[in-house]
Parts: sequence; structure tokens; C-alpha cells
Amino acid sequence: MIFADKLIDAILEKDNPTVAGLDPKYENLPAPVRVMAEKKFGTGDAAKGYAFFEFGKAIIDAIYDIVPAIKPQLAYYELLGPAGMEAFAKTVKYASSKGMLTIADGKRNDIGSTAENYAEAYLGPRQFNADALTVNPYLGDDGIRPFADLCERYDRGIFLLVKTSNKSSGRLQDLMTSDGMHIYEKVAELVNDFAKNSTIGKHGYSSVGAVVGATYPEQAKTLRGIMKRSILLVPGYGAQGGAASDAAVNFDKDGLGAIVNASRSIIYAYASDRWKNSFTEERFAEASRAECKRMRDELNLAIRGK
Amino acid sequence: MIFADKLIDAILEKDNPTVAGLDPKYENLPAPVRVMAEKKFGTGDAAKGYAFFEFGKAIIDAIYDIVPAIKPQLAYYELLGPAGMEAFAKTVKYASSKGMLTIADGKRNDIGSTAENYAEAYLGPRQFNADALTVNPYLGDDGIRPFADLCERYDRGIFLLVKTSNKSSGRLQDLMTSDGMHIYEKVAELVNDFAKNSTIGKHGYSSVGAVVGATYPEQAKTLRGIMKRSILLVPGYGAQGGAASDAAVNFDKDGLGAIVNASRSIIYAYASDRWKNSFTEERFAEASRAECKRMRDELNLAIRGK
Repeated sequence: MIFADKLIDAILEKDNPTVAGLDPKYENLPAPVRVMAEKKFGTGDAAKGYAFFEFGKAIIDAIYDIVPAIKPQLAYYELLGPAGMEAFAKTVKYASSKGMLTIADGKRNDIGSTAENYAEAYLGPRQFNADALTVNPYLGDDGIRPFADLCERYDRGIFLLVKTSNKSSGRLQDLMTSDGMHIYEKVAELVNDFAKNSTIGKHGYSSVGAVVGATYPEQAKTLRGIMKRSILLVPGYGAQGGAASDAAVNFDKDGLGAIVNASRSIIYAYASDRWKNSFTEERFAEASRAECKRMRDELNLAIRGK
Repeated sequence: MIFADKLIDAILEKDNPTVAGLDPKYENLPAPVRVMAEKKFGTGDAAKGYAFFEFGKAIIDAIYDIVPAIKPQLAYYELLGPAGMEAFAKTVKYASSKGMLTIADGKRNDIGSTAENYAEAYLGPRQFNADALTVNPYLGDDGIRPFADLCERYDRGIFLLVKTSNKSSGRLQDLMTSDGMHIYEKVAELVNDFAKNSTIGKHGYSSVGAVVGATYPEQAKTLRGIMKRSILLVPGYGAQGGAASDAAVNFDKDGLGAIVNASRSIIYAYASDRWKNSFTEERFAEASRAECKRMRDELNLAIRGK
């Protein structure tokens, strides 16, 4: 089954259009996780990598039955070097074993012959074996094709950056072209070209998706219209300031075609104003589950009410 | 000393504006390297990682006295997973120990809080500890700032993608904006903003550089003019089809301000039409040295003759 169908089926089955982002930062991990890791492995990267995996595993165990996908952010794992990559690989494998879809957030990109290596590393069956990867489109068609090809070959997915959630994303993405379109619209057309030429699943979607930040709802409306075949991965909800109603504009009239990410608000829920009085630090994973449920209900309300 | 000065000093000292790109692909490595690795470690990623390091080390040993910098391409190492990242780390460390400057070609990018992790991982002193990193600018100012900040803090460099060497780079990069400029010119202005606001070294250059493909010499002339403070990293020479005269337009009137990359034509020189009759496969590193000398002389002639 193609990735797009697997993802939408999972969203429907769990009635939850959420992806949980894993952005582990050692200093911010719950004390019990750090203490356990340091007892076993001291204070080097091996200890931290162990902590990253155990932290992710605990959260996966707490949410896998209610959240369809996780998105480990490679930058955090790479900060630990090879030990971090090991933790990343184990986390992806563990999440898959629990039936979650895995989106490697690496924003990889290069010219075609080099991009083939990234595609094979992350989406191929022999290395990290993730279900999907985020990809930066700045290099154009031949920098995207190796990723799109592997999506077809291995039933994987990609999410191409179109309009990112950060404050200054407009510096390049909002530039107006001479034919009256913004760059983000031009990139959306590029994404749509790849999506149209890929396998379209039973829900009407391709496995070539796009990243559209919840922090830019006006642009998202336009982009939803251009990329009719692309599932939108929507970051920026929660800690970055995007509201459920902002995220909701990315969904189609049937309430499908998008998945909303939250990272810090889920994984550090135990330390948040909302949950810190309900859960001790030891119960961090339960706090994550509570936040996932709250987010799910808030999103579903916003999507169905829009 | 800031990175820009270290790099230009090394180019002047060795009279060679070349960076050797390490793009190791296991199947393409010289047979003696593969045989040695498989004898020691079998056929898994550990063997391949060992081969990647030994291959890179042999080339570094053969060229470090005549080539100022190397550029390991992360995609190739990541294909081997954690063992590949280990080989990458060891290669960077070894090249540094031989006095070469190291440019990690990772084209990393993300929103600010996440980009900080990439910056620290590659440019910080505690992990990969490279001298410079290639960065994708699509996310705008706040996706670039964490990298630029670490350049200042640790005397590191970045090269932001402006006009890439691949065939379809124009799909986005050549779009014309409503004020009559191409996107690659707009990105060049963004790069120049960062360069102007960074430390300028004794040669007049900032450590915030740019990637401009040798395959687009007309655009390179314009870009040289916009980014007067940025060292241009010029890929696309050699195997990708860029000529020495095409690469030469990236240099300033004093013959400085650029460094030309070649990867496959250097590392696989022993198998090339030019050198395969002069060197056996066992002598692959000597063939790389011969190709580096040839390239150096060809480039210097083109730069001084332009």
C-alpha cells in the first residue's frame, strides 16, 4: 500500500490527524531518564544516545495506540554524532514495531547523484528505513526526483518544504515573481507536478506531500488549492504559536489531506503550565499522552467546525 | 584567525584554489581498499565505514601538502548509517591533523531553534568539529543565523547555496521576481547581508560564503558582483562538465575569493581515461595527487589568464 494511504488510514483509524515530533535535547529530558542513562553509561554521547532512545521509547509506548505517526528531528540526534544516529535508527525501528508511521525530519537535499544516497539512506530498506522524509526543494526537479523515485519503489513518502513555520520564512518564500505569484506558490506547483505524476491512492492523495506552517493560515488556504494531491505536514502548532483553527485550514472538505505536528508541547508536556500540576516528572510519558488526547480533540473540533 | 583568512592563507601558501570532494561510494572504491576492509570486518556497514575512512585517509595522505581543503559529502557517509557517521567524523579529524581545512557538505537547514543543533553538531568543537558547513538558505534569516553565529564564535565558515550546479537548479533559482531580479540574486543579497554583518578578515572576505556552480558562468559573474565579501565555493568542475574557464569567473581581480571543488575526477582519478594507463588500482592515491596537480595548474592558468 502506498504511504499516502497508510497515513490516511492510520489517521482515520485513530481519529487523530497528529504527528508527534521527537526533538530531544539532553538538558531538557526528564531527570529520571538522565539519571538512569548516566548510571549505565556515564556522561558521554553513549549515555545521551541511550537517554534519547529511552525517552522516545517511553513516549511511543504511551501514545502509539492514539497517535498515527512520529517525526524524529534529525538535527537533535546528529548533535550526539554516531551515537545519536544509532539512537535515531533504534527509535524509528521501535516506533515501526509499535505500528506507528515514521517521518524522518532531515530536510535533506542535494544534486541528483548525491540525493540518491540520502534517499536510499532514509527511505531505503537497508539503513534507517523510515516511512517518510522531509526534503528541501531549492535544487529543483533533479534534486527531488531521487526521493520521489524511492517513494514509488518502496511505498515511502516525502514532504517538500513549501512554506515553513518560522518567522523569517518569507524572506525568500514570499518573494513575488514577475508573473504575480509568490515563490511558495511556485514551489507548490513544483510539488504538484511530482504529486500528479506519482501513484494516487484510494483517498485521492499522492505520497509526495508538502510542509506548510500552521503559523501562516492565509497562505495555507492558497496552497491547499494548488496542491490538491499532496498531504500537508503542518508544523508550528503549539510551542511555535499556531492555533488549531490555523492548522485546520490545511485540511480538505472531507477533513483529510493534512497532519499536524507538535513537538515540544507533547514531549515536554510534563513541564508545561497546562500539565505540570497533574503529572510528576517520573510520569512524563503519561503527560505526553494527555497532551496528545487534548490536541487531538482540539484539532478535530477545529477541522469539523471550520 | 577567522575561517576566511585561514582558507585564503592556505590557498595562497599552496598556490592552489582547489577543494577535494570526498564522495565515497562503496562499489566504486578501489578493489584493494574493499578487499582489506572485508578481510577485517566482513561485508556490513562496519567494513564499509572502515573502507571509507581508509580510502579518504589514503587520499588525504597523498594530497594534503598541495590541496588546502577537503569536502566530505555527508550523503555518502549517511548511507552507511552510524558507521558512516563514525567514518565521516574520523575523516574530518584526520584531515585536520594533516593541516587541511574541512568543509562538511551537508546542506543542512531548519528553523532557528532546530538549526542551532545542526550548527553545534558540525561547527561546534565537541562533535564533528569541521571548519565549515554548506547550508541551504530556503528558510530565510532565522534559519541561517544560528550557523552564522557559530562562525563568529568558533572561527568557522558556512557556504550558503545560491546557484547550484545541477541541470534543473533554475526551476526555482532562476525565477524572476517582480522587481526584475532572479531568485539566485535575491539569495545572494541575503548572503551578502550576513557577510557584511560578520567579521571581515585581512583579505577582505567574510566567513559567510556561497555555493555557485561552475556550470553557470554567466550567473556567476553577476553573483561575484553582488557578494563581494563572500568566498564562493564552486562545484561542478570536472565530472559535472564545468571547465576551468567557467570556474575562473568566480575569482576576484586579485585571483582570490573562490575555491573550486572536484570530487569524482579526483577520488576516482585512477579509473579515469586520463590516468588509468599511468596508475594501477593499487596506486589510486597517487593518481589523485596527479589529478590535483593537473587541476591546480589548469585553474591557475585560467584564473591568471582571464
